[in-house]
Amino acid sequence: MKNYIKHDPWSVIEEGWHPEENKITESLMSLGNGRMGQRGNFEEQFSGNTLLGNYVAGVYYPDKTRVGWWKNGYPEYFAKVLNACHWIGIHIKIGEEEVDLNQAKSITEFRRVLNMQDGTLFRTCHVTLKSGKQLKLESLRFCSMADDESGAIKYSITPLNFDEIIRFTVFIDADVKNEDSNYDEKFWDGIHQEAQGNSGFVTVSTKKTEFQVCTGFDFVFHQNGEETKVEVEPVVKEKYAGLLFNFDAKRNNTYTLYKYAVNLSSLNYKKENLLNETKKYLKTISGKGFSLMLREQQQLWAQKWSTSDITIEGDISAQQGIRFNIFQLNQTYTGKDARLNIGPKGFTGEKYGGSTYWDTEAYCIPFYLATAPQKVARQLLYYRYNQLDKAIENAQKLGFIKGAALYPMVTMNGEECHNEWEITFEEIHRNGAIAYAIYNYTQYTSDYSYLAEAGAEVVFGIARFWAQRVNWSNEKNKYVMLGVTGPNEYENNVNNNWYTNYLAAWCLNFGLEVIQYLKNNTPEDYLRISKKIKLEEISETEQWQHIASNMYLPFDAHSELILQQEGYLDKEQILVKDLPESQRPLNQKWSWDRILRSCFIKQADVLQGIYFFEEDFDLDTIERNFRFYEERTVHESSLSPCVHSILAAKIGDFNKAYEMYLRTSRLDLDDYNNDTEDGCHITSMAGTWLSIVQGFAGMRIVNGKMHFSPHLPSQWQQYSFKITFHDTLLTFTIHSGKTEIHNQSEKVIRLCINQMDYEIQANSTLLV
Amino acid sequence: MKNYIKHDPWSVIEEGWHPEENKITESLMSLGNGRMGQRGNFEEQFSGNTLLGNYVAGVYYPDKTRVGWWKNGYPEYFAKVLNACHWIGIHIKIGEEEVDLNQAKSITEFRRVLNMQDGTLFRTCHVTLKSGKQLKLESLRFCSMADDESGAIKYSITPLNFDEIIRFTVFIDADVKNEDSNYDEKFWDGIHQEAQGNSGFVTVSTKKTEFQVCTGFDFVFHQNGEETKVEVEPVVKEKYAGLLFNFDAKRNNTYTLYKYAVNLSSLNYKKENLLNETKKYLKTISGKGFSLMLREQQQLWAQKWSTSDITIEGDISAQQGIRFNIFQLNQTYTGKDARLNIGPKGFTGEKYGGSTYWDTEAYCIPFYLATAPQKVARQLLYYRYNQLDKAIENAQKLGFIKGAALYPMVTMNGEECHNEWEITFEEIHRNGAIAYAIYNYTQYTSDYSYLAEAGAEVVFGIARFWAQRVNWSNEKNKYVMLGVTGPNEYENNVNNNWYTNYLAAWCLNFGLEVIQYLKNNTPEDYLRISKKIKLEEISETEQWQHIASNMYLPFDAHSELILQQEGYLDKEQILVKDLPESQRPLNQKWSWDRILRSCFIKQADVLQGIYFFEEDFDLDTIERNFRFYEERTVHESSLSPCVHSILAAKIGDFNKAYEMYLRTSRLDLDDYNNDTEDGCHITSMAGTWLSIVQGFAGMRIVNGKMHFSPHLPSQWQQYSFKITFHDTLLTFTIHSGKTEIHNQSEKVIRLCINQMDYEIQANSTLLV
Repeated sequence: MKNYIKHDPWSVIEEGWHPEENKITESLMSLGNGRMGQRGNFEEQFSGNTLLGNYVAGVYYPDKTRVGWWKNGYPEYFAKVLNACHWIGIHIKIGEEEVDLNQAKSITEFRRVLNMQDGTLFRTCHVTLKSGKQLKLESLRFCSMADDESGAIKYSITPLNFDEIIRFTVFIDADVKNEDSNYDEKFWDGIHQEAQGNSGFVTVSTKKTEFQVCTGFDFVFHQNGEETKVEVEPVVKEKYAGLLFNFDAKRNNTYTLYKYAVNLSSLNYKKENLLNETKKYLKTISGKGFSLMLREQQQLWAQKWSTSDITIEGDISAQQGIRFNIFQLNQTYTGKDARLNIGPKGFTGEKYGGSTYWDTEAYCIPFYLATAPQKVARQLLYYRYNQLDKAIENAQKLGFIKGAALYPMVTMNGEECHNEWEITFEEIHRNGAIAYAIYNYTQYTSDYSYLAEAGAEVVFGIARFWAQRVNWSNEKNKYVMLGVTGPNEYENNVNNNWYTNYLAAWCLNFGLEVIQYLKNNTPEDYLRISKKIKLEEISETEQWQHIASNMYLPFDAHSELILQQEGYLDKEQILVKDLPESQRPLNQKWSWDRILRSCFIKQADVLQGIYFFEEDFDLDTIERNFRFYEERTVHESSLSPCVHSILAAKIGDFNKAYEMYLRTSRLDLDDYNNDTEDGCHITSMAGTWLSIVQGFAGMRIVNGKMHFSPHLPSQWQQYSFKITFHDTLLTFTIHSGKTEIHNQSEKVIRLCINQMDYEIQANSTLLV
Repeated sequence: MKNYIKHDPWSVIEEGWHPEENKITESLMSLGNGRMGQRGNFEEQFSGNTLLGNYVAGVYYPDKTRVGWWKNGYPEYFAKVLNACHWIGIHIKIGEEEVDLNQAKSITEFRRVLNMQDGTLFRTCHVTLKSGKQLKLESLRFCSMADDESGAIKYSITPLNFDEIIRFTVFIDADVKNEDSNYDEKFWDGIHQEAQGNSGFVTVSTKKTEFQVCTGFDFVFHQNGEETKVEVEPVVKEKYAGLLFNFDAKRNNTYTLYKYAVNLSSLNYKKENLLNETKKYLKTISGKGFSLMLREQQQLWAQKWSTSDITIEGDISAQQGIRFNIFQLNQTYTGKDARLNIGPKGFTGEKYGGSTYWDTEAYCIPFYLATAPQKVARQLLYYRYNQLDKAIENAQKLGFIKGAALYPMVTMNGEECHNEWEITFEEIHRNGAIAYAIYNYTQYTSDYSYLAEAGAEVVFGIARFWAQRVNWSNEKNKYVMLGVTGPNEYENNVNNNWYTNYLAAWCLNFGLEVIQYLKNNTPEDYLRISKKIKLEEISETEQWQHIASNMYLPFDAHSELILQQEGYLDKEQILVKDLPESQRPLNQKWSWDRILRSCFIKQADVLQGIYFFEEDFDLDTIERNFRFYEERTVHESSLSPCVHSILAAKIGDFNKAYEMYLRTSRLDLDDYNNDTEDGCHITSMAGTWLSIVQGFAGMRIVNGKMHFSPHLPSQWQQYSFKITFHDTLLTFTIHSGKTEIHNQSEKVIRLCINQMDYEIQANSTLLV
């Protein structure tokens, strides 16, 4: 756990230079705009502890996997988000001395600030070089939300105690390597590079996948705020384009470079036009200029905050924590492109390959549903719809037939990337989360058009998978599901994981409901779809019905507990509180077999099911199972505490709810798990948001109606959050003892607070 | 399946050149002497399909593992037997033309013969070079059993239609690579090389482990049987020593090289003396000369066959099959060195790293017990005793305490090499096989001295492991063992595998018996050992007793079947006969999860337990379980059919017994599994022997007494085998309707045939 980041409501601030934490700071100060992103690296040369990272969404490389013993069915590759062209580079040489913070004699007045309100990264410092020369550096940059294939930098240097020729090298460099390359390869081939005038361009192509990305830049040089022409010497080498110039600098004058950069990829442009399009795009943004671009950036971020902000009064660290999470989610995914998704590290690092996990459906979609235009969540659903064919192929590889779909555990383009059999082949509950997200979307938005358009096919493919994945047990006179891994990955290859069985039965019922909905509402769509997918109505639906009604759900009659899986009570029942601190985290201290046979739970499993299907359980059942499983859960996944926090709030245990909330709210800012240097835990950030909105404020959608049961944590004076529901922006402010709800729309809105119905008139505030 | 090997009772014959099968033939025609071995490669240059293989027992390299996702507790390396110095090399150049069978215009009269009676490899052929020059090649070589760090070659060439200068290059080359190197590294560093006169030497050292091996050679040249001096030019380069000479050869004269080679390793000699010892050793063997060495070879092999041969009359292919198996077992392990063991591929290939598996204890020890001096099996037991400390360390890594020992799944020096969690950490039944082998040894030999000397400590370490590995289940009111993989590796991480639980209980009981035996017979040994290992007698033994008596053993009361594991009957019960041929082998056609949740069994599991503990079960129980599990077993391990064959014979189903026998008896000779090119299945060869002796002939040792119930398969006219029991060599000949037993010793021997007691007088024959 680290504590060097300064607490502030709107910014993430490093004050004073912390070179040993630089990789953490770089992760925290990452910028993105949904289309491209980068870590908080320095523009100038830096020989210290750093992980250079620039990422272009949707561009990946199928890295050859490493496995111990090959299992039939494993994918050949692991798709990886690519560390792409380093476009921020500005190298500075004072006389013969390279400016490099790692080589400097001293650094004072260092300040690096991620401004979350504007989506900008600012840095300033005074550097004393080994020669004794002193200078001031200042930079401000952003990835433009308005022009989301570009970024801009304002970079200034002021000699403080010398006159000297300064050599500037403004460049882009695509000769980069992924830190997580399995066989130490570079993933990019050079295609083209050029530099002339004040601009340069590099086009590179990924090996195997042959994505092309063209990066272009130009710059303007200012002396004390006045544009100044300079004589530029181009330097071109493979995957690199640079522009050099010397300037006779005088003390206390400020020299500023405005650098504009564009990253266009062949995902969005024809390869043959890529260079010209990049030139055109570059002209447009540099035509706008830095100030206008910055204004647009501020406007767009203001707009995002206007629908997604949460304020917390009385706890500045909590305020910073929740805003950081919302900021990261908003800059990782904008919903503009259905081919993109939310990697576990977003644009902040390479770990986990930058691919899509079930995190998106289980944790992130509720956030975007409530805080962003409806289209954003819809795009995430479309991502899976567009990959349905691949999911069907994936299921076929595993022996399933007739259009059964198994979505991959980890994917970039719909193909499975993961290769641990117990996950790849067996952690199949992910399939259910994808159907659940469709349900969630229709519940929240009351927009059923998505079903006929796309969702129904996904739901049916998933239902077919479950129908084939179970088998009838004569022993149990029930359907059983053998050999699965539930959300609790500290169990592998178990039989009858309750969560998976329950979710599978639910999916089958949901499939039947969707059929009924279509038949009743858009029968022509039903005909079209059932023909397309060759749905054998009677035989298939009867089978779905039979399975859903006869699914084996492990339960202990004596204790009245839901059992995580068959045989769970055979385990030695030790509680987490009795586990010595020296043994934790288990995944670093215990061998895998010991973890597997212990009763300890990595992340919510039965409780994940209770969370998803809360209405199916009475409060006693929820509490009984919560108490039992919470005592056995080690929360060694960042996705776990939020579910516990929400359920703890549900049963009124707000101390526990707050304790669980704290586990993730500042996970990255405080480097709680010692791994922020690899990147931030983007998807679990949605969980923190859920802990507040669904946990403390108790938001639920039941039968299309919004319910709340607000609670103010005693550590806070008040908090407020914004929700868009049925196109209506609502602002909730929870004070001690009262809740204020402001309806910012022209519509009357109905909701339910603490089980009482209320109406809020247009443009007015309700006090409860 | 291939059918190009000529059937012959004593030889393995390739007649006519089969270049496309060369790697298979090389595996089949491997030679070894327990200390070193090599594949049946050609001496001269060969550019075709080949896997050069030379191996020095006990010398290994810890190759960095490849894993998908690291699990805590995985070993860092996988020890691999090393492809070592290529010592047979003799390159021949006729004028400017290299002799290379792959480049020749034609090859006629090709014959390659592994003579199993003598342990020699012979080859002859007529070669027409591209130039039209014709020559005859002939070679005879062996790895000497008498001088087991050496080998000798007689290599002749006869020009048939030309006079020409022939250039001979006689060399050794240690610049070799393991085919299975994980990261494409070479494992040897060069230390020294020299060549002068008629001899050359190369010393190399393994990376990381720093084993040194010095290989030396010299040669003598004969012209038409007369020793002839030649002018030799030495060629030395890194890891290579060669001797070149030219000879003005005339048609129809025969030129013969006698090449002698020695491989000494730092396992057996001090590094600083290695070169000198190699020179001395080389002098000794070349002093003996080829003919004497060959005579010694013939004598020693005759001796081996005199105690281990099996003859089968009426089926030459069966005769060849069983002799091939016995031959391979005898040349792989000789019992001279307790640091050595039996790799799954012996000296015939590199696959599986050449390391030790539980195959040794479960399958090989019974073979050596019955066919070799008692010391041989004892050395195999000592191998594990010497690695007890490492087994205790291994258990500690997994969280076990107080001297509990877990032997590794795969090892070279006692450390675990394997890294699939479901095997490494969970296939723990291997530990029981090691205790069982000690029991087996004492039963067979009535030599209990091994217990006090070494065995007891191993048994106690293993008992302690099981005592900690179970846990009490309140649910079942029994001890349970969670998260294991049984012998049937088509189930992973199951709870209460019957075989493992049964074996664990047996080990605990055996531990108690060993305590009792020592207390009663050598109480001072008991005191010494119990003090050494800090045995807490009352608390530990009572616990062992309690666990052994209260172990949960899954059983289905309705069907009266032993259950392979808890929940086995929940699986869809399909039979192997109903599985389409196109779906097999399952491990190539089905994804791993599908295999796991199916009822199909890779290799004997419940039946392995019934085989080990046959006396505990009545014939009905054996038959019921055999019928049930046999129908579900796909035998996708070469270690499976022998157990089924033996049990089928036990219940009198000799058709099934013979069918199962055929599955392995010619596994390699007919390349049944399409994998002989990687090497032969050495350890499963012991299973074939077991199928005859324990299967058809029904040999059992019960309470130290030998029992037989001989049966003659209808496909054979008669068969005979040799058994050494209590230092007495017995020859059994089973004819149709009668059995002849010849006692070749001065002792009276008592045994039991078809449940009748008999005495066989010294040097006489019993007819039953």
